[in-house]
Amino acid sequence: MEPNNACTMHSHCIEMSMEVHQVVPPPHKSTLQKLQGRLKETFFPDDPLRQFKGQPLKRKLILGAQYVFPILQWGPKYNLKLFKSDLVSGLTIASLAIPQGISYAKLASLPPIVGLYSSFVPPLVYAVLGSSKDLAVGPVSIASLVMGSMLRQEVSPTADPILFLQLAFTSTLFAGLFQASLGILRLGFIIDFLSKAILIGFMAGAAIIVSLQQLKSLLGITHFTNQMGLIPVMTSVFHNIHEWSWQTILMGICFLVLLLLARHVSIKKPKLFWVSAGAPLMSVIISTLLVFAIKAQNHGISAIGKLQQGINPPSWNMLLFHGSHLGLVMKTGLITGILSLTEGIAVGRTFAALKNYKVDGNKEMMAIGFMNVVGSFTSCYVTTGAFSRSAVNNNAGAKTAVSNVVMSVTVMVTLLFLMPLFQYTPNVVLGAIIVTAVIGLIDLPAACNIWKIDKFDFVVMLTAFLGVLFISVQGGLALAVGLSTFKILLQITRPKTVMLGKIPGTDIYRNLDQYKEAVRIPGFLILSIEAPINFANITYLNERTLRWIEEEEEDNIKEQLSLRFLVLEMSAVSAVDTSGISLFKELKATLEKKGVELVLVNPLAEVIEKLKKADEANDFIRADNLFLTVGEAVASLSSAMKGQSSTITEGTHTIVSHN
Amino acid sequence: MEPNNACTMHSHCIEMSMEVHQVVPPPHKSTLQKLQGRLKETFFPDDPLRQFKGQPLKRKLILGAQYVFPILQWGPKYNLKLFKSDLVSGLTIASLAIPQGISYAKLASLPPIVGLYSSFVPPLVYAVLGSSKDLAVGPVSIASLVMGSMLRQEVSPTADPILFLQLAFTSTLFAGLFQASLGILRLGFIIDFLSKAILIGFMAGAAIIVSLQQLKSLLGITHFTNQMGLIPVMTSVFHNIHEWSWQTILMGICFLVLLLLARHVSIKKPKLFWVSAGAPLMSVIISTLLVFAIKAQNHGISAIGKLQQGINPPSWNMLLFHGSHLGLVMKTGLITGILSLTEGIAVGRTFAALKNYKVDGNKEMMAIGFMNVVGSFTSCYVTTGAFSRSAVNNNAGAKTAVSNVVMSVTVMVTLLFLMPLFQYTPNVVLGAIIVTAVIGLIDLPAACNIWKIDKFDFVVMLTAFLGVLFISVQGGLALAVGLSTFKILLQITRPKTVMLGKIPGTDIYRNLDQYKEAVRIPGFLILSIEAPINFANITYLNERTLRWIEEEEEDNIKEQLSLRFLVLEMSAVSAVDTSGISLFKELKATLEKKGVELVLVNPLAEVIEKLKKADEANDFIRADNLFLTVGEAVASLSSAMKGQSSTITEGTHTIVSHN
Repeated sequence: MEPNNACTMHSHCIEMSMEVHQVVPPPHKSTLQKLQGRLKETFFPDDPLRQFKGQPLKRKLILGAQYVFPILQWGPKYNLKLFKSDLVSGLTIASLAIPQGISYAKLASLPPIVGLYSSFVPPLVYAVLGSSKDLAVGPVSIASLVMGSMLRQEVSPTADPILFLQLAFTSTLFAGLFQASLGILRLGFIIDFLSKAILIGFMAGAAIIVSLQQLKSLLGITHFTNQMGLIPVMTSVFHNIHEWSWQTILMGICFLVLLLLARHVSIKKPKLFWVSAGAPLMSVIISTLLVFAIKAQNHGISAIGKLQQGINPPSWNMLLFHGSHLGLVMKTGLITGILSLTEGIAVGRTFAALKNYKVDGNKEMMAIGFMNVVGSFTSCYVTTGAFSRSAVNNNAGAKTAVSNVVMSVTVMVTLLFLMPLFQYTPNVVLGAIIVTAVIGLIDLPAACNIWKIDKFDFVVMLTAFLGVLFISVQGGLALAVGLSTFKILLQITRPKTVMLGKIPGTDIYRNLDQYKEAVRIPGFLILSIEAPINFANITYLNERTLRWIEEEEEDNIKEQLSLRFLVLEMSAVSAVDTSGISLFKELKATLEKKGVELVLVNPLAEVIEKLKKADEANDFIRADNLFLTVGEAVASLSSAMKGQSSTITEGTHTIVSHN
Repeated sequence: MEPNNACTMHSHCIEMSMEVHQVVPPPHKSTLQKLQGRLKETFFPDDPLRQFKGQPLKRKLILGAQYVFPILQWGPKYNLKLFKSDLVSGLTIASLAIPQGISYAKLASLPPIVGLYSSFVPPLVYAVLGSSKDLAVGPVSIASLVMGSMLRQEVSPTADPILFLQLAFTSTLFAGLFQASLGILRLGFIIDFLSKAILIGFMAGAAIIVSLQQLKSLLGITHFTNQMGLIPVMTSVFHNIHEWSWQTILMGICFLVLLLLARHVSIKKPKLFWVSAGAPLMSVIISTLLVFAIKAQNHGISAIGKLQQGINPPSWNMLLFHGSHLGLVMKTGLITGILSLTEGIAVGRTFAALKNYKVDGNKEMMAIGFMNVVGSFTSCYVTTGAFSRSAVNNNAGAKTAVSNVVMSVTVMVTLLFLMPLFQYTPNVVLGAIIVTAVIGLIDLPAACNIWKIDKFDFVVMLTAFLGVLFISVQGGLALAVGLSTFKILLQITRPKTVMLGKIPGTDIYRNLDQYKEAVRIPGFLILSIEAPINFANITYLNERTLRWIEEEEEDNIKEQLSLRFLVLEMSAVSAVDTSGISLFKELKATLEKKGVELVLVNPLAEVIEKLKKADEANDFIRADNLFLTVGEAVASLSSAMKGQSSTITEGTHTIVSHN
């Protein structure tokens, strides 16, 4: 009784030890159905229309409106308690947004006020369209840096400030259009090619570039290079030692130490987040008062100067769609667009994962894109969800996008009434604020971790880092993306083939290298192919397989055995093309001449389907060389090979099954 | 007794049904060792140094010389019997080589005699260096067409014939250098990217382009366009109807029918291969006599004209390494080099597979490359192993590369003594010979087969075909290669995830879609991921997995079950990078919030190694969420889940194992 009992419970069972299971092709689908399925997986992996299924029309319309305007989803449930949290966090990020806005605009060689304009309109747009609850919107350091450096290639912001501004707004429009169309066309996966490793290297490089640029204001140099690279900047710094101003340097060091200390406190004790969040505004206030009190501009400390009052003027009349700079503007839009999008999406995803809600990548892209399009009409430059600001927002307890609205209103009040106060703010403090902000972008522990886990990723990271430092921001990025794409192609071109052996006492076949206890089966060569088989690797696979066979034959000669079967375990071959099919035909022909039979194990749906279509002569889809598991293949083929032992097995089989 | 007996025989055995096998990491290797292994698989998959291992120095030197000069391998064993076969086949291919050489040179807009020069020196070089026994060397239609069309973009062969010739020789040098360096640097896999599908589409398009060019000589038009595209050629043909010569057309049709008939006979009866092999030479002789007899040049039939006598003059003084055409020359060399290499390697491999010997791709590249370098010094243009000629060579019984030597000597005799005879050969017959040759390049059955097996490959093929016809030869190729590379990237970006179920009565888990009898296990969601996990697909995999879980949870609510385990079957995940590792961490965190446990099954060597390195908190490498097979995972986890049934199992286990 017991064995039988065990059988029904465990399924590893004597009764079926010799039963061989059929490999079956997948159910038939028309080409159109397959195309449809493929397109759905490619462009709609999240199946956004699922929630609409089976709903009445009215509900469908409501859901549709909520899909386009997420505010309709959370707005009706909004209450005073939520508002209290949002008010606190909104004021906190506003105190960060004002000095950062001014600083980042200067980083992009734009008038400081454009940075404040960009912290007013875009957050309002995002509050209506965005689906993240934690994203704090505004200009960011990297996109500012890239926009400034790219546009400066053709136009000088000091010689022709109006044209420069026009180019900046037009680039912003193109960035927005590009971002929105990525979302609409559901091509968001393009930003995935900026991998984590690339971003870490890139951001560290950019942080250094940005910090170096700040040497201008930190040292008080007036004649500074327009270039970005490490070498021209250092040359410029040391060629102009006579311009260094000790008063500026002293002030810079003081505030830099202050800001870095505040940052350090907040990192050590996350509850004291407001220390680092408020420090920039405090520094601006203190330094402005100081400059005003001691009339520091007479001591060589330069200040921002007079700023215009009032909210964003319209700028649609400043957009340029012709002229010799159009190419540059489109390129700048594309690159700043993709960089700011990457930051915005990554921030959104990070906080959504923390708080266990979902942001829809493609929808976010549309929101950020539309926000930039509107921004380009209202004197804003490229904005997105900023890492540091969103972290502060989240720490300060933000519950919904209303915190963005609070920040926006605060910035508006500043624009309307407080602008004259910034007249005496020294540039050196803005430089210190930028340096403190970007120094957080250098993530050494992450770099170490990458070195530990994956050396190739580390090389990619280093490429991005050094490329940004010594070539250019775009060049470094392109090089790193190219390198990591090349790695993917190389993985396909040189797929792993692994020899399998049987783990004693089981029916499990595994990599002989990895599982030292696994043993080889005499007469069988069992290989596992670990990649799709296609035009790029059939030559390699053919050569490599024949080398495996030759090596096996050499071993066999020593042991006076002959190789009878080549078993290809195909569980990892996810796809095959016409070239792949021809590989099997060729292999089969070559093996036949050597007296070796080709056996396929567990070809997946697509593979078995194509093999069947190509196999008019019924060479592959025969029961005696197609098996569901390696175990069954070996068992069945060895019993066929040894007639005698086969009879015993049959006998046992009968006895047990009638037990 | 019997069950126990069965156990030792089959290993599917009750005793170990509850035994759980450990997943182990691969043995430790240093970064350097890994790099070495990776480099070896990338650049030396055929392990060319294997034969040298453990041999004495003298033997090593001999093997080395034989490696560089394969003639040393077969030369010593050469005998009279082999020579008889090679003589017959050599004379046969010479009779084909002479008219083809003249025709293809005209196709490349070069003087006809350059085609004969190119059938004299390169075959001699190949005989010494080449490792194929069947390759018949000489100019080929596609490379001739491409070289002519590319060089004509900048220089007119009629207005400046000397410069044109200089560019052709220089391009040949660059082609040779490029080919040889691909071989030396072992980068031969680059030509694999010209897949079979691309080549079929490309060759069909090129055949049409080439045939259209022949309308010039077939219709007797004197003012013909210099462009290659379908549209300009047809325009040129119909704008010059008044130039059509009925005598030429009549003669052209006669010989075309004759040649096509001969080709048809040889296809139907392969033993009559000499009919189509000898037909071109016969046509040339008959038509020349005819023209001479009836003084046809007076009737509007143009002839080749006077040809220079004597063997190849040196041409190293004609190579140009400066001037405005250098860029074009290098590009032409690159493209003709890659095209002729692809043809040569494919021909070599095809016949090697037929006759069961091996050609070393990288060695062949060096041989073909060196042959072209020498050719460029001796008034030859690009040559390679030609499809049609090699087939004739093989049919005629060639045994070794000596048949190339015989052909070469025959061409030499022709060059020295028979050149005046070609003076009256009409151009129209050369046109008919080319059309007959290239029409064989259109492979409709192969195209149908591709349509049947893989629709995407068909699209790639069509792209190459239409691209060549309507854009340009290089443009069409680049487009098709880009498209098929994009497909590979898309496969990685959108890997398949498949839900597995248990095949009843076994421990085998397979695709639920494919195996209709497979059943789901309540409480488990078992997914198989069928691609390496990396930066390009983690976002997709994350979203897709969460969608699987949501769908599963919806189903479960109906059945009042709760999902307990997400089992990821990783047998097909051949590699993972740092982003891939972060996917697991993220998934685990998300799942924990849903009360679902993440279980990994059979991670491969590289994956387990990296997981272990990244896993300081010991989150993944715990015995209770890492299993060797899905069966063991499900069995072990369900027994842990149901305490009671677990006890029964344990009991059974004990009883059975002590049976």
